[in-house]
Amino acid sequence: MSHNTFGKLFRMTSWGESHGPALGVVVDGCPPALPMSEDLIQPWLDRRRPGSSRHVSPRQEPDRVKILSGVFEDDRTGGPVTTGAPISLLIENQDARSKDYDAIRDKWRPGHADYTYDAKYGLRDYRGGGRSSARETAARVAAGAVARQVLGPDIRIRGALIQIGDLAIDRGSWSDEEIDRNPFFSPDAGSVARWEERLDQLRREGSSTGAVVEVVASGVPAGWGEPVYGKLDAELAGAMMSIPAAKGVEVGAGFEAAGLRGENAADEMRAGEDGPVFLSNRNGGVLGGISTGQDIVLRLAIKPTSSIRIERRTLDRDFNETTIETRGRHDPCVGIRAVPVAEAMMALVLADQYLRHRGQVG
Amino acid sequence: MSHNTFGKLFRMTSWGESHGPALGVVVDGCPPALPMSEDLIQPWLDRRRPGSSRHVSPRQEPDRVKILSGVFEDDRTGGPVTTGAPISLLIENQDARSKDYDAIRDKWRPGHADYTYDAKYGLRDYRGGGRSSARETAARVAAGAVARQVLGPDIRIRGALIQIGDLAIDRGSWSDEEIDRNPFFSPDAGSVARWEERLDQLRREGSSTGAVVEVVASGVPAGWGEPVYGKLDAELAGAMMSIPAAKGVEVGAGFEAAGLRGENAADEMRAGEDGPVFLSNRNGGVLGGISTGQDIVLRLAIKPTSSIRIERRTLDRDFNETTIETRGRHDPCVGIRAVPVAEAMMALVLADQYLRHRGQVG
Amino acid sequence: MSHNTFGKLFRMTSWGESHGPALGVVVDGCPPALPMSEDLIQPWLDRRRPGSSRHVSPRQEPDRVKILSGVFEDDRTGGPVTTGAPISLLIENQDARSKDYDAIRDKWRPGHADYTYDAKYGLRDYRGGGRSSARETAARVAAGAVARQVLGPDIRIRGALIQIGDLAIDRGSWSDEEIDRNPFFSPDAGSVARWEERLDQLRREGSSTGAVVEVVASGVPAGWGEPVYGKLDAELAGAMMSIPAAKGVEVGAGFEAAGLRGENAADEMRAGEDGPVFLSNRNGGVLGGISTGQDIVLRLAIKPTSSIRIERRTLDRDFNETTIETRGRHDPCVGIRAVPVAEAMMALVLADQYLRHRGQVG
Amino acid sequence: MSHNTFGKLFRMTSWGESHGPALGVVVDGCPPALPMSEDLIQPWLDRRRPGSSRHVSPRQEPDRVKILSGVFEDDRTGGPVTTGAPISLLIENQDARSKDYDAIRDKWRPGHADYTYDAKYGLRDYRGGGRSSARETAARVAAGAVARQVLGPDIRIRGALIQIGDLAIDRGSWSDEEIDRNPFFSPDAGSVARWEERLDQLRREGSSTGAVVEVVASGVPAGWGEPVYGKLDAELAGAMMSIPAAKGVEVGAGFEAAGLRGENAADEMRAGEDGPVFLSNRNGGVLGGISTGQDIVLRLAIKPTSSIRIERRTLDRDFNETTIETRGRHDPCVGIRAVPVAEAMMALVLADQYLRHRGQVG
Repeated sequence: MSHNTFGKLFRMTSWGESHGPALGVVVDGCPPALPMSEDLIQPWLDRRRPGSSRHVSPRQEPDRVKILSGVFEDDRTGGPVTTGAPISLLIENQDARSKDYDAIRDKWRPGHADYTYDAKYGLRDYRGGGRSSARETAARVAAGAVARQVLGPDIRIRGALIQIGDLAIDRGSWSDEEIDRNPFFSPDAGSVARWEERLDQLRREGSSTGAVVEVVASGVPAGWGEPVYGKLDAELAGAMMSIPAAKGVEVGAGFEAAGLRGENAADEMRAGEDGPVFLSNRNGGVLGGISTGQDIVLRLAIKPTSSIRIERRTLDRDFNETTIETRGRHDPCVGIRAVPVAEAMMALVLADQYLRHRGQVG
Repeated sequence: MSHNTFGKLFRMTSWGESHGPALGVVVDGCPPALPMSEDLIQPWLDRRRPGSSRHVSPRQEPDRVKILSGVFEDDRTGGPVTTGAPISLLIENQDARSKDYDAIRDKWRPGHADYTYDAKYGLRDYRGGGRSSARETAARVAAGAVARQVLGPDIRIRGALIQIGDLAIDRGSWSDEEIDRNPFFSPDAGSVARWEERLDQLRREGSSTGAVVEVVASGVPAGWGEPVYGKLDAELAGAMMSIPAAKGVEVGAGFEAAGLRGENAADEMRAGEDGPVFLSNRNGGVLGGISTGQDIVLRLAIKPTSSIRIERRTLDRDFNETTIETRGRHDPCVGIRAVPVAEAMMALVLADQYLRHRGQVG
Repeated sequence: MSHNTFGKLFRMTSWGESHGPALGVVVDGCPPALPMSEDLIQPWLDRRRPGSSRHVSPRQEPDRVKILSGVFEDDRTGGPVTTGAPISLLIENQDARSKDYDAIRDKWRPGHADYTYDAKYGLRDYRGGGRSSARETAARVAAGAVARQVLGPDIRIRGALIQIGDLAIDRGSWSDEEIDRNPFFSPDAGSVARWEERLDQLRREGSSTGAVVEVVASGVPAGWGEPVYGKLDAELAGAMMSIPAAKGVEVGAGFEAAGLRGENAADEMRAGEDGPVFLSNRNGGVLGGISTGQDIVLRLAIKPTSSIRIERRTLDRDFNETTIETRGRHDPCVGIRAVPVAEAMMALVLADQYLRHRGQVG
Repeated sequence: MSHNTFGKLFRMTSWGESHGPALGVVVDGCPPALPMSEDLIQPWLDRRRPGSSRHVSPRQEPDRVKILSGVFEDDRTGGPVTTGAPISLLIENQDARSKDYDAIRDKWRPGHADYTYDAKYGLRDYRGGGRSSARETAARVAAGAVARQVLGPDIRIRGALIQIGDLAIDRGSWSDEEIDRNPFFSPDAGSVARWEERLDQLRREGSSTGAVVEVVASGVPAGWGEPVYGKLDAELAGAMMSIPAAKGVEVGAGFEAAGLRGENAADEMRAGEDGPVFLSNRNGGVLGGISTGQDIVLRLAIKPTSSIRIERRTLDRDFNETTIETRGRHDPCVGIRAVPVAEAMMALVLADQYLRHRGQVG
């Protein structure tokens, strides 16, 4: 995990700015002979696509993925499969309105990476946030679709939005089916109307809100992960915190674990038909950095969109005090579209750990 | 960050089991000509050492560090300095009572990595948790002391315990000086008596408790970190979650950010004498994965010690149902000794990012 | 250096098959604010381009490079510069005649990677060698052009062909200017007619020949490189042997060093105006893996093109014995076009070691 | 491969100076449940040990290896096996006569890394070459012994010395059994007397000589290796060139391939009982960076020992011109002891590529 590459054996390298001609990702180390086509990747991108409801950015990007390498006909089935070579995926930018950004060319938007990019590199591509734009996450979702093929159908990764602002879902009403029925990836039908109202109000006020995402991976066998520095939960934490606007991540009981007594924190075990059965999952499916076979459960806190219409105090590049109101097309709650991104990062970490496990242990 | 190596340019590789003859760490990529001696490392180890109060494990380990390589006389000053070669640090184990562990040889302790190590490797060194023991963190603290030399005196890293069980400190009473005056690394003198009482009670009951650690790095210049996958906060999150018993990590406002509105989340900027002055630090000193020059602030949730005297249900290695009470010498609250470990991980991440920044940007 | 990524701090990841829609490379870790444009890269690609003389493959590929990311206007000069973000370079394939390859779909060409790719992956993209095609080296040359910008104008990298078959140049007639005047990159004008005659004859006979490439880097300061496993010459050797058809690499005196006595092998030193002056360069500019400040000199042996019209015995994919004559458009001496590729690999290694040196030592 | 770490999945990190208290290596990523003990490692170290004949350094080092971690009793057999945790190996230095080196404290020995270490780091541990000493190769041999356990008994790695100075063996007299019967690892009994005479003469004259090592790995299955930058032969070349005093490496026909015609360079294939049979091995067992199943054959050129008694011109650290005669205890032909080291590097590369292949392809 460094610069723009993620993973060790199953690796992806993303590139592209928000308002450049295209963005893309090179997926390397993929096992051969896995079915692979644009049709297998596109549905995941469509879930993350802007413009899909009034609650996300109205930027119109079809986000059509093209496979440029690494896929060839299977000589048995004739269908397209991975060859083991790097898979280059390209997504063209279409609705990039760079003129929108002239106003921010010389100002640092609070909460954004404008100042820090300038501090680091001495210059920045200011159009739409350039490389720091959440648009980069399309590359993650595309690579995540490849990772899902590596993991196979027995491993299911499911993200959901469980809180917008201070409005949390009712966990008792959780329905996996509901998640795809509303524009929020909410598993609780009862939350939808309240969240719509809240977002409509924030949009009118020119403000934004934070959110909490939960991601669960089911079907991961016991034994994946590494001890000490390559712990499965450590890599998941790093992966999730690399998502734009992420401010916190927790696994299993998470921060609540701080308040527990020992007898309530350690998951007891009984004998099941196919191995151990755990009587609880306070550890979120990971012990000592290695999967237990239970669901892997984590939550991710996303801060409010920093691009808001409310005037904020800031500096220009010459260190003069000024103010800024960010117009342009922004998600009032970036947490919504963070759901498919967080799923993709879970898939990428698991695929990489799977191959590393297979490498060391066979 | 993989297996037992942490870092990219400033790297450390740790080794050793809880009850083996020794444990150690090889620090590689260290800049040359930095003052280095056992005396510079030992004080940091002493802060983490077991047996220092009744609230931590009574195991008696002097934890004396020996430098085996990478340090030589400076031909100008004659004092010992780093040479740029790998620095091998060795700590001998002394008070390892392996007999204590015969009882757990064939049972999986709930909340520990016993089952997952068996699931992954097919065998495990059961003596004191072997490689999964928190004793490994001595290597981190020793390497962290080297990292502090790389960072120099202008960067200060300070950890504190801010919550034990449900007992949080009063942040209004925060005193940096207080942190070293009590056995809990508490910055709030008022919390000490309450925490002592709580821990004494838990120890009597054979139970344990979780905690929350806060770590702050001051003096980090703006511009360190990497965009996208090597984000400073992403690497910090991974580093912190690699600490044994960690279940959550958050930066700046953290999970609270989910409940904020945009205008309260983005830190405004005004002109100061030496550059920007931020009017708040909701982002914890990191924007877009790159340091802002503000304090880097993170918090880490630690679960309760899983080794408790209270009987728990579990399985043996033949999948028979049984129960276990863990005796031996354990910390009732591993969060206490996690404070110097979290500081060390902060130092390791910063030293590595510093060298990487210098490599790319000069 | 793994899979399709080369380098540690200055990294490139290449992708693309010989007969796919395009090939490309993502250059990551590049310092910011370096002048960068397609015009700066194209001339290096033109040197490697097929179809430039009758002695190389007649495949007609304009090999026009497109920059898709990582370059933006400098706010001072307005000219395009690197931003520190990944630079994605794309080259479209145009003259890919996949039909030429139906004959080899089910046969393994001797000397090629056909059998080994099948053995490893269970399938292969047989069109033009797929990923194993020397066409991949266009990506190296493009990335090498970026590396040259990192190194700056004071470091000159110059490759030459010094032997074709058993016909070596006369080193006494060496002229740097001559290298670009003939289609062989020969520094010896006297060799050109002999080489033309040899290649014309081989082409008539449907055969091919090996060659030796020499690459020299001047202006590299003393101190670059790493001791032990990241030695400058070790990385150069690995880089050169990763070039298709490479079978040997040597630095300085190389294999001749085996026959020397100690007093003739170690380069003596005298005092010069700007530091040490070496009285010879038997070590090729590297001692203990670190540059001495002298020219870095290496040679690379390239085997004959395996694609020849002469009938050869082989197997088909069902392990039936058969024969094969490879038609299609091939270089009779791949060593010629290996010259700009070897230069590029030298540039990539040096740029990476430069940044790593700057990272560790400042 | 960077700094002092070698390998990607099967990794080793070495540390220690020639005249420090000890040297060692941490082997990480080793598969579990492999038999492992000091007795399995020691014989390989004994082959490399100084003082074993009058033709190598008379320094008396028992080179006893100690296992400090990563090995535990197998609960089935009770015998010691790897656990999957890092294996820390320690070798104490005993016969370090640092006083011998006061004379070279302020002078740069020609052909050694003295000047380049000073140029890079600004200081160096001058005692016996410090980190640049060939003594570091003991760590490689110890790690290589672990790698051999990973590879198992079906893969045989055998090095030999095939040339000393200009005296080459008669390949027609090759006998594997002979290699261990003489102090030169010569496979040709007829060469032994001539080599003894040559080395005795060189020693009397205070000079030294170069040599050529050949290493062969048999039993490697087809399919190991990676295309493009992680090619098996590219990694072997890098590994071999990282051995002190190496100046060239070639695979299969090597530099001779430059003089071949295509029909003599590509190894033809016929059908055998268990797969393809190659009619020659000009490619040294590697095609396109991937193993063919044939013997992997490479040769390594080693320069003469730079430490000689013959006076040489050099500089001191203040750039004054001076001369030096290196006394102390040195090998007149470091190529001899390079044989077990080159075997170890072959084992390390193969073990790593094996695990990586298993990771990607299963």
